[in-house]
Amino acid sequence: MDTIILTKYDVAEIVNRVGLHQLMDDIIDELRRTFRNFDDDLTQVRKRDGFSYLTPFPGVLEWMPVMQVDDFAVIKVVSYNPANPVLYQMPTIISTLSLYNIRNGHLMALTDGTFATALRTGAASALASEVLANPNSETVGLVGCGAQAVTQLHALSRLFDIKRVLAYDIDNSVLASFPERCRFLDLDIQIVPRQELEEESDIICTATSVGLDAGPVIDGKNLKSWVHINAVGSDLPGKIELPLQLLNESLVCPDYRVQAVIEGECQQLSANAIGPELIDIMKHAPEYKSYQMKKTVFDSTGFALEDKAAMQVLLALAKEVGVGRSVPVESIEIDPMDPYSFARAHIGNEQTQIVSVV
Amino acid sequence: MDTIILTKYDVAEIVNRVGLHQLMDDIIDELRRTFRNFDDDLTQVRKRDGFSYLTPFPGVLEWMPVMQVDDFAVIKVVSYNPANPVLYQMPTIISTLSLYNIRNGHLMALTDGTFATALRTGAASALASEVLANPNSETVGLVGCGAQAVTQLHALSRLFDIKRVLAYDIDNSVLASFPERCRFLDLDIQIVPRQELEEESDIICTATSVGLDAGPVIDGKNLKSWVHINAVGSDLPGKIELPLQLLNESLVCPDYRVQAVIEGECQQLSANAIGPELIDIMKHAPEYKSYQMKKTVFDSTGFALEDKAAMQVLLALAKEVGVGRSVPVESIEIDPMDPYSFARAHIGNEQTQIVSVV
Repeated sequence: MDTIILTKYDVAEIVNRVGLHQLMDDIIDELRRTFRNFDDDLTQVRKRDGFSYLTPFPGVLEWMPVMQVDDFAVIKVVSYNPANPVLYQMPTIISTLSLYNIRNGHLMALTDGTFATALRTGAASALASEVLANPNSETVGLVGCGAQAVTQLHALSRLFDIKRVLAYDIDNSVLASFPERCRFLDLDIQIVPRQELEEESDIICTATSVGLDAGPVIDGKNLKSWVHINAVGSDLPGKIELPLQLLNESLVCPDYRVQAVIEGECQQLSANAIGPELIDIMKHAPEYKSYQMKKTVFDSTGFALEDKAAMQVLLALAKEVGVGRSVPVESIEIDPMDPYSFARAHIGNEQTQIVSVV
Repeated sequence: MDTIILTKYDVAEIVNRVGLHQLMDDIIDELRRTFRNFDDDLTQVRKRDGFSYLTPFPGVLEWMPVMQVDDFAVIKVVSYNPANPVLYQMPTIISTLSLYNIRNGHLMALTDGTFATALRTGAASALASEVLANPNSETVGLVGCGAQAVTQLHALSRLFDIKRVLAYDIDNSVLASFPERCRFLDLDIQIVPRQELEEESDIICTATSVGLDAGPVIDGKNLKSWVHINAVGSDLPGKIELPLQLLNESLVCPDYRVQAVIEGECQQLSANAIGPELIDIMKHAPEYKSYQMKKTVFDSTGFALEDKAAMQVLLALAKEVGVGRSVPVESIEIDPMDPYSFARAHIGNEQTQIVSVV
């Protein structure tokens, strides 16, 4: 009864063998399937809960559980520490994903969730754009050019024929490095003033670390009449990226409504001003087709169902590629009635326990 | 930025080097310190939350988080699947413990929690008995002789001079194997009818898998006037082990009140019939000394603070003994602004990544 652990090297090897584009396509496909087939009798999603703290630096540590009835549960633990890049040269968002067998409680797998979070957040925006954005969208604007912007653009590039990318960030060093970080996409990336980005983009992604009560991050007054916005950054009570005026003019589609009203753009809206969830729109896409030529907002707070899909893709690819380590974490063998039996049985055996699956 | 993983072999090696008695003493001491020094400005405890299910077999999968402000958080994930021993030859309770750095969100360590849960549950009962039971207690009765009974008895034997152990279980095979499982304690263990156990015990531990609405598991009518009961089994709404009459005659001390009123014996009581939490009693032990000669109940639901203490002991001993594996789980290095940078940097490096700390 071991736990499969995918190390970052295992995940890197998956990327090496499969390629970033195929990996993103797999995540998008799995997430599309997950959303379209979602049945809340079969899948129980919990909204994020966690610890938030202001010292030593502001941040949160949160857990996001989801259960597939009769089968398995995935718990993502994710932290958001905006001081990380400067203080520790570490990403703002760090995460792990754990998979449990619901039949007996066994921890089946543990993987990195940092990379998976970035991928699935991009994939979710791409899927929202697929149903809500103008299908002929050619110009993508990115407000906030940090880590999440890379996967937003990558995912969109898999579903849209992007001709121009307009980039804006209040941090010039982040902005300056963005074209190099996206070089693998071979897109025309232009650094522009925010006003120009707002005027010329068909699709805009906001993915910022704007402070509490410091938003919005765009003006929203001179947007295209069909603009679709993926508002990705809001993930805390008090953190918002879009002006209320713009939300009022738009169809606002949350990923997960009960969570979005607490920490997404939907914080700003009364209940009847909030549109259907992305899952509803994807299940009934033809009914919403007319919105592709209107202003729409995807209020992406990120939720456990997306993490489940991303983890499933990573584990399936790990098996295909032949990476992963089998690690005996839980002391669950020998005599189930004797909590000390595992220790007596394994004394002196400590050398040879971690075997590669390869 | 690796994660220290203690495998079951590492934990077995700790047991081998330190010994079961020293390990239990360390857990009891750490838990005593943790309870006595508890300050809710410095330590935030969350009550258990989770998924419960009736199919394919009844059970729960729960998360129990605790945060030490400015420092770290521990999240225990624990499952309770009473069909495990029969169906899978696995323990009813399976668990893992994860330690996070609250400064940056990094997963610092992952260990088994199954063994730790058994140890700390025993230690908590021993500490409750230390303040509430007759200090001259010599006869311990065990109602339910599964895995938890082993650590209940072990922990009590470290603080009391036990002369006789009276054992009772509705499952004869469990009962029959109990003396052998406790042989390392070198105690006089007698299998007795439940009525005799109730009449003659100074301390009773109930640790059963009694079904919902199927309790109580003791009659409670002919107990010693100073009996102290550690009611360990209740951990689900509807699951109780003690008769209401007995609770009404006793000082009922929950481990964690907000949780005990949902899933402990305290479910049966109105708010004003519930006594102080164990922490309060330990902080003001002299004030409660007179209860050592009265009927008292420790309503043990098990809570995150105990898991934090147990994990701290295991990690400290792992360091001392020199066991544990350093596993790079999170993709958190290289460029914090580029979620793909770790993959580019590590391609082809997958062979040599898990190193023993030894």
